[in-house]
Amino acid sequence: MSSQLRLAVDAMGGDLGPRSVVPACIRFLQNFPEAQLKLFGPRAELQSLIQEQHRPPRAVSRLEIIHCEQVITQECNPLQAVRHKRDSTMAMALMSVSVGEVQAAVTSGNTGALLALSRSILGNIKGVRKPALGKSVPSGTGSCYLLDLGANVDCSAEDLLQFARMGIEAQRIHTSRSSNGDIKVALLNIGAEAHKGSAEIRRAAGLLEADPEVNYVGFVEGHDIFTGAVDVVVCDGLMGNVAMKSAEGVIRLMGQKAFTIEKSGCFKRFFGQLAIKLLRKWRTQVEPARYNGASFVGVKGNVIKSHGGASSEAFYRAMVTAKECADADLAARVGAAMAQPGSGAPRTMDK
Amino acid sequence: MSSQLRLAVDAMGGDLGPRSVVPACIRFLQNFPEAQLKLFGPRAELQSLIQEQHRPPRAVSRLEIIHCEQVITQECNPLQAVRHKRDSTMAMALMSVSVGEVQAAVTSGNTGALLALSRSILGNIKGVRKPALGKSVPSGTGSCYLLDLGANVDCSAEDLLQFARMGIEAQRIHTSRSSNGDIKVALLNIGAEAHKGSAEIRRAAGLLEADPEVNYVGFVEGHDIFTGAVDVVVCDGLMGNVAMKSAEGVIRLMGQKAFTIEKSGCFKRFFGQLAIKLLRKWRTQVEPARYNGASFVGVKGNVIKSHGGASSEAFYRAMVTAKECADADLAARVGAAMAQPGSGAPRTMDK
Repeated sequence: MSSQLRLAVDAMGGDLGPRSVVPACIRFLQNFPEAQLKLFGPRAELQSLIQEQHRPPRAVSRLEIIHCEQVITQECNPLQAVRHKRDSTMAMALMSVSVGEVQAAVTSGNTGALLALSRSILGNIKGVRKPALGKSVPSGTGSCYLLDLGANVDCSAEDLLQFARMGIEAQRIHTSRSSNGDIKVALLNIGAEAHKGSAEIRRAAGLLEADPEVNYVGFVEGHDIFTGAVDVVVCDGLMGNVAMKSAEGVIRLMGQKAFTIEKSGCFKRFFGQLAIKLLRKWRTQVEPARYNGASFVGVKGNVIKSHGGASSEAFYRAMVTAKECADADLAARVGAAMAQPGSGAPRTMDK
Repeated sequence: MSSQLRLAVDAMGGDLGPRSVVPACIRFLQNFPEAQLKLFGPRAELQSLIQEQHRPPRAVSRLEIIHCEQVITQECNPLQAVRHKRDSTMAMALMSVSVGEVQAAVTSGNTGALLALSRSILGNIKGVRKPALGKSVPSGTGSCYLLDLGANVDCSAEDLLQFARMGIEAQRIHTSRSSNGDIKVALLNIGAEAHKGSAEIRRAAGLLEADPEVNYVGFVEGHDIFTGAVDVVVCDGLMGNVAMKSAEGVIRLMGQKAFTIEKSGCFKRFFGQLAIKLLRKWRTQVEPARYNGASFVGVKGNVIKSHGGASSEAFYRAMVTAKECADADLAARVGAAMAQPGSGAPRTMDK
């Protein structure tokens, strides 16, 4: 008998709002009979969307609507969110994690607000200097965990060491490799040679090399994220964000080019149609946006950020990521790892 | 009658060495009857490769071999290159640009060594603080010029302003837009909002906004490089390198996934084969590595860097990029642009 799974879901904030979230929730409840969802948003709107779905009442009975009307828009800055948006759907979902009503929260809302509210409502895990946004991306041999994806612009070598420790715990969920020695960790850089990169990246290499808990394999370049040669890639938020979004952009462009070529010529049009079907399938396998659901690791609770433009299918995938984090209790694992010596946590003075 | 085009080609240094360079040279000579090439490398090896090609003697007569035996390996560091590799194929090719024998040099050798040797042999254009590596990448509406791709790790706001000025000149070669006002320039960042990114990126935004020669449109994210919304994207070498290589990596992964799926099932295998043919074609259009040839802008001469792993086809494309830079005399254009007021060039004391 599987244990109960409880998730908080922010119905608002993404580009499509509850129109992508509600169908994803119903599909999730049908696929996972042990799941219970708390859905945060305006009750009347959500109820009418649920009714449109014509789904069996048994699944819907496990969905509880928590009425909130305040929504955090994309324009809202992090400080405003913390100061004035405590009754928002996003803040309420995080509070339900904080009080232990649910095991994880999922949202496709404003990233900056989410990070600020998570830090403020949940707080950092003891010893964590900076929580980081991380994500499992497809690779030649399965997946690779990439962090930070944009939560931290300025990162010291000590921060990067902590990201590595946290990334190992997150990647453990996605891989059969259980011991730290089997999880290969690399630093993202502009070349593999030791003299390359910024002074801070080179200093981080020294810290990672000296850490017995990290199987550090050296510098890698952007393309190595996807080859499968390593399991965790660590970088600052600028580099990680650019890596992720550039990969998404070029895959999208390729899809567009395919549609253009397909329109020319009769023979080509016929096979082009078939090829596009296959292309879509391939793209689904590699498009980072379809690997939806980044985790905000380092705060006291499991927080999952969906792509803002997520379709219902993509939001469903973010919910599955939330389930995986909840099942493994990622936040607790990170907490245990950061309590170990040498984790880069600031030393306390009393013994 | 078209004017003569003279290029220096480093036969060594890439992963495939002269085996990719020699066939590319012969194809280039056949396609461009006005071209003359100086090929730098070991004479006997090059001559035997040329003979293997069975090409008409007329094209080969425009190829001159300059015998050099010293080769710069991938392991050679920039300082070693400048101090001890002045007789190398790469250095000799750059010297032939320096003395005006040729209009541009092309190499697929060690990037760090190339940048150091270019600075040392050709020197910076007057007023240029840091030369940058830039490249035209495919976009939804044609192409986008991205710089810096890794020549400079630490970039000040003033450096980024200069990259913008130089990038405009480089992009002008690839676009029909002739006035600066038509060329949209953006800064790469982790979000479009003004408060995002590092202090230096935000300061650069202020400088670009104040520059009447730059049509600055704001911050863009990694995916925007490929949408066609902007014409020039400016960033430091870490971000640019990561953007470019991540895009290459995910496209390569998609190709691999396609081959795996194609092997399963009879129906799928048949259409899969056809689809893969089309996929290859689409990929050629978007794969950044196929848009081969980055320019090192800001030095006194046209220097083109091919991908290290370039095939003969890819090296040929880098040669075409070199031809375009030579035809437009990119280095002279950049020189003229940097001589204009407000270009960020340090002021001289006298008057």
